Amino acid sequence: MALHDEFSFIKDITPSSLHQADVLVGIGDDAAVYQVQEGQQQILCMDTMVEDIHFKRSYSSAEEIGHKALAVNISDVAAMGGIPKYYAVSIAIPAHWSPGELTAIYQGMKQLGDTYQMDLLGGDTVSTQGKLVITVTVTGETQRPDNCLRSNAKEGDIVFVTGYVGDSAAGLHLLTENPDNLSATSQYLFQRHKMPVPQVEAGTIISASGRASLNDISDGLASELNEIAEASNVTIMIDETMLPISKEAFEADNRQALTWALYGGEDFELVGTASPETFAVIEKECKKAGILITRIGEAHQGEAKVFLEDLHSEVRLLAKGGYNHFQKAGGINGVESENGKS
Amino acid sequence: MALHDEFSFIKDITPSSLHQADVLVGIGDDAAVYQVQEGQQQILCMDTMVEDIHFKRSYSSAEEIGHKALAVNISDVAAMGGIPKYYAVSIAIPAHWSPGELTAIYQGMKQLGDTYQMDLLGGDTVSTQGKLVITVTVTGETQRPDNCLRSNAKEGDIVFVTGYVGDSAAGLHLLTENPDNLSATSQYLFQRHKMPVPQVEAGTIISASGRASLNDISDGLASELNEIAEASNVTIMIDETMLPISKEAFEADNRQALTWALYGGEDFELVGTASPETFAVIEKECKKAGILITRIGEAHQGEAKVFLEDLHSEVRLLAKGGYNHFQKAGGINGVESENGKS
Repeated sequence: MALHDEFSFIKDITPSSLHQADVLVGIGDDAAVYQVQEGQQQILCMDTMVEDIHFKRSYSSAEEIGHKALAVNISDVAAMGGIPKYYAVSIAIPAHWSPGELTAIYQGMKQLGDTYQMDLLGGDTVSTQGKLVITVTVTGETQRPDNCLRSNAKEGDIVFVTGYVGDSAAGLHLLTENPDNLSATSQYLFQRHKMPVPQVEAGTIISASGRASLNDISDGLASELNEIAEASNVTIMIDETMLPISKEAFEADNRQALTWALYGGEDFELVGTASPETFAVIEKECKKAGILITRIGEAHQGEAKVFLEDLHSEVRLLAKGGYNHFQKAGGINGVESENGKS
Repeated sequence: MALHDEFSFIKDITPSSLHQADVLVGIGDDAAVYQVQEGQQQILCMDTMVEDIHFKRSYSSAEEIGHKALAVNISDVAAMGGIPKYYAVSIAIPAHWSPGELTAIYQGMKQLGDTYQMDLLGGDTVSTQGKLVITVTVTGETQRPDNCLRSNAKEGDIVFVTGYVGDSAAGLHLLTENPDNLSATSQYLFQRHKMPVPQVEAGTIISASGRASLNDISDGLASELNEIAEASNVTIMIDETMLPISKEAFEADNRQALTWALYGGEDFELVGTASPETFAVIEKECKKAGILITRIGEAHQGEAKVFLEDLHSEVRLLAKGGYNHFQKAGGINGVESENGKS
């Protein structure tokens, strides 16, 4: 299936109505949320990685592949302001992978899962004649299911992002050039691409602070901001001078650093908006927790579009697309984006 | 990875201890169960099907593939005595599948899901250069998480099975011979292989009746009974004359019907044990609901083995294995079986 067919495909499969009244967030956000009982909300998300599309054995160890497969799911839970609890793993295994490598994939997941006290609850292993396909489901909990929706942005909100943006794409670029580069810059950026750290603590802080809109950055800042703008029907204006781009990304290629920041994706940082009062609380709590969070713009009344004011004070429209270095066919939760995924 | 490596692989990845005290059933049964709150237990399971291993486009329509991918997961919930509620779907898509076919896969799932009031909550779609891989996660609820464990069998229990066993393998056999055969026998057996019906209502009845051991038949009666015998440390003796084998399976090949019944797998019926008193209740309630349930043997004190008393009153050991028509690498939930899966 070609990429351009995907939007109508997701529309086709999205049910027009739900059977269960307990679904609080269905298809169309980072993860689904359903109520088990008053005050007990479960989060459910599921992401897949395919060999040679989302990772390559030439530069990622089995542990790193496992880490990332779980991390991208935990990141979806973080973007709902939730706490991850359990995971299940399904792997379709080609004959050329050894049992030792498979065990190492699970060890990579376990190391990350352990930091969140998560337990592996099951899954499936099947053989395949094709590439290795690894699918992870994560379930979690949230006390405030309404606080982190994409559709929560309002005019007057401050736009913020955690950590640095563009590092992952910079790392991928350098890995493609020379995966054996031992420089500190390369090692830092490799790590940022191969071993993303989901922002669970930041998500919890944001969710506890009040109404916010929130996405994790899987498809790139421009794409995530467009999703928020469209879901919330606001105009988002961000300022190039405020973007948190690491010195390492600039060192990797200072002409490409902005493109990586805007369109690179896979940073698995959180991007969102909150009122100035709420953002003041978020900022203070993040500072206490040692989490970098940066104000990068504002939300305004107007068309659902995203603009960048560049270094020369010129305003450019930021389209969703840009480039998409992974050949993803898309995603179901990320229904708003033609390149999107959950 | 070869099949014989799988047992140690699953042992390797099964955590020696759990972080969360709320896990009631971890790796090693049909599905996992965890407590959200006193009296609120969530079931989680996940199964994967791979093109040309678990299904072939030459004889299964896209709707049938979708139906089966969801059905095998609902069957795991049924084997825990639970009610399925939600599902998420991840598909790795090769370029040669059309958007129409993909939509039809989801329609097949929706038709089955609708019968249980289940909602699709999300998932992922990615492209692959390999075969189509479809992974489904189902969550559900159970009020009695301890009533349907594999380890619940006791000496003196009656061994029972729902529906007919061997139909699915008979159907696969006939499909391989002539998928265009329009005879009533072929059509019935094709359907039993391609469109399995999970036994949710039977599972609910069994779970409500008291202590039972329970498995769904994915790997074949012999394999499932061995899992129960091992988990419960009992000897299971079944009687060939009591096995519910359909007249259609006998018509397909009366010399193979018994082998199909014992080793064929993919019937997705329920097999288990219960005390004579509990079984009397189960039998009565199943009769009321129009569900075929058949007493096929007894559990005895002794070694964890399974025996068949044949037509000539000779007793044969029933090994787990037999043949395995699907090249499954195995499963995580079904940790006891070398060919097992969740």
